[in-house]
Amino acid sequence: MTQKSILVGIDIGGTKTAVVLAQQPPEVLARAEFATRPAKGPQQALNLIKKSVRDLLAEKGWDAGAITRLGVSCGGPLDRVQGVIQSPPNLSTWENIPLKAILEDEFKVECLVENDANAGAVAEHRFGAGQGCQSMVFLTMGTGLGAGIITGGRLYRGANDLAGEIGHVRLTRSGPIGHNKAGSAEGWASGGGLAQLAAQSVAEAQRKGKKTLLADHVRTGKPISAREVGAAARKGDAVALEILRSTGERLGEVLAILVDVLNPERIVIGGLAMRLGDLLLDPARRVMQREALAQSANACNVVPAALGESIGDVAALAVAMGI
Amino acid sequence: MTQKSILVGIDIGGTKTAVVLAQQPPEVLARAEFATRPAKGPQQALNLIKKSVRDLLAEKGWDAGAITRLGVSCGGPLDRVQGVIQSPPNLSTWENIPLKAILEDEFKVECLVENDANAGAVAEHRFGAGQGCQSMVFLTMGTGLGAGIITGGRLYRGANDLAGEIGHVRLTRSGPIGHNKAGSAEGWASGGGLAQLAAQSVAEAQRKGKKTLLADHVRTGKPISAREVGAAARKGDAVALEILRSTGERLGEVLAILVDVLNPERIVIGGLAMRLGDLLLDPARRVMQREALAQSANACNVVPAALGESIGDVAALAVAMGI
Repeated sequence: MTQKSILVGIDIGGTKTAVVLAQQPPEVLARAEFATRPAKGPQQALNLIKKSVRDLLAEKGWDAGAITRLGVSCGGPLDRVQGVIQSPPNLSTWENIPLKAILEDEFKVECLVENDANAGAVAEHRFGAGQGCQSMVFLTMGTGLGAGIITGGRLYRGANDLAGEIGHVRLTRSGPIGHNKAGSAEGWASGGGLAQLAAQSVAEAQRKGKKTLLADHVRTGKPISAREVGAAARKGDAVALEILRSTGERLGEVLAILVDVLNPERIVIGGLAMRLGDLLLDPARRVMQREALAQSANACNVVPAALGESIGDVAALAVAMGI
Repeated sequence: MTQKSILVGIDIGGTKTAVVLAQQPPEVLARAEFATRPAKGPQQALNLIKKSVRDLLAEKGWDAGAITRLGVSCGGPLDRVQGVIQSPPNLSTWENIPLKAILEDEFKVECLVENDANAGAVAEHRFGAGQGCQSMVFLTMGTGLGAGIITGGRLYRGANDLAGEIGHVRLTRSGPIGHNKAGSAEGWASGGGLAQLAAQSVAEAQRKGKKTLLADHVRTGKPISAREVGAAARKGDAVALEILRSTGERLGEVLAILVDVLNPERIVIGGLAMRLGDLLLDPARRVMQREALAQSANACNVVPAALGESIGDVAALAVAMGI
């Protein structure tokens, strides 16, 4: 087998896991995806990761000798240096899984592990909306709310890899719960927070006899997703528009804290902001401008992430490249 | 005149200005100090700065040819690159003073200018309580509240030199005013905030017929200083102790934001924290531990600045050395 210099990226999420091969990221040469099924424990997913890597290599006519490095992007908490996954909220059965050791033993090549907010920040900085920035914050706004921070053109990890936990910062004395803290930024300005607010708002609308397109979703008993709120808002649904305005304004308070503390050139927002766009970002920018120092707010562009649905793949490849 | 490699540090404050000479900072070879008197406009102070530099050099038998570089530490806002002082709150008559150009013209040698929070951060990082840290926050808690941030072992300035404006971050919807913002961190947790709280607390104590050692200060009409509150607290004065507990707890909320966002190894606090010590820092640490992520709070030491009253001199010399 000739030297192929293949990088393997593994993006492990609570719903799905993706395995990708690349020579020159962000270009992907081969890709596999499967359901992570954390409820079934980690073993099945670990086996599928190993199998997917071998299958993708075989598909291209290569073997494990072609791999230069593996990179894993995964939700925290995790021990980056030892490469151990420490029971993240979205992978609750993955208790102290020594992923680095497992994969290095399997493929006889170095494996690096990084939390998904940091990996996403580097991916957007290197290949997406943050290109050329010396200072940047990547805000990952999914079920939770976290951040990866770029200072001096490089990832800033903090004392023990926990920098960027903006979701844990308090916005109000009490309020919706996120990151195990009532009134936190994650409680107010995340997919989870938006779902809590949507459930309340629709219930209130129904009590008051106000019509809303979201009423159907409540009847099914499933949480209302950001996508559904966005679709209703685009049809002019007043309740949906109010939910997005309110969540956007809380997001603006979060942005103001980041702007005052970090004075970044750019804040790149993934997840909800990509799907909802200016419905969410207009109120967010307005509150940021009101709350933050004017000179710092004026210096900061707030933009949606550019890598779209491929951000997980590229984040894992950025880890494999070395951060 | 032989090559002497003299660094000149100039620390410009609202009350006093110091000029120091050094060859190997933080060791100071000669020092002069005079009242800044901003009410009289900048010209008198500028003349005294030039004269002090020449007098100190002459005292040592040197002339301006001995100077390697001048460094100025001054309150912001300022344009660091152009070296222009832009009317800081404590030097309100200094409107767009091109200090770098003035001093370079006078001494024919490079002059660097940096805001005092950043210069203080580098001074404590290089010579004080932050030595050896890769990540550190220096909190300057005087009349105002600002921060200088070290990431990757270097000063982090942000997009336009405004990183670290933690004093502008909102803690509550309304409250004492600091940084032109009601309910801001500076309103709650600074010397100015403490003076506002002390005036209220003493007035309330007097209404309720409670005795306090601070009552005398109120009679004079002058603001109560942190030092006076500290002295009364050390004598067991209940009102003074309550003022420090309350300010310390608000400081703890500020520390928690810094810990969650930056996960620093150390937070070094100058100004009030040096003078009040654990009277202020014990409640601050307690609230920080409650409010911040446990793993990040446990990784962060909160300590008073080590350079004491010489921090201004050393900060200016750090600027002259190059940051």
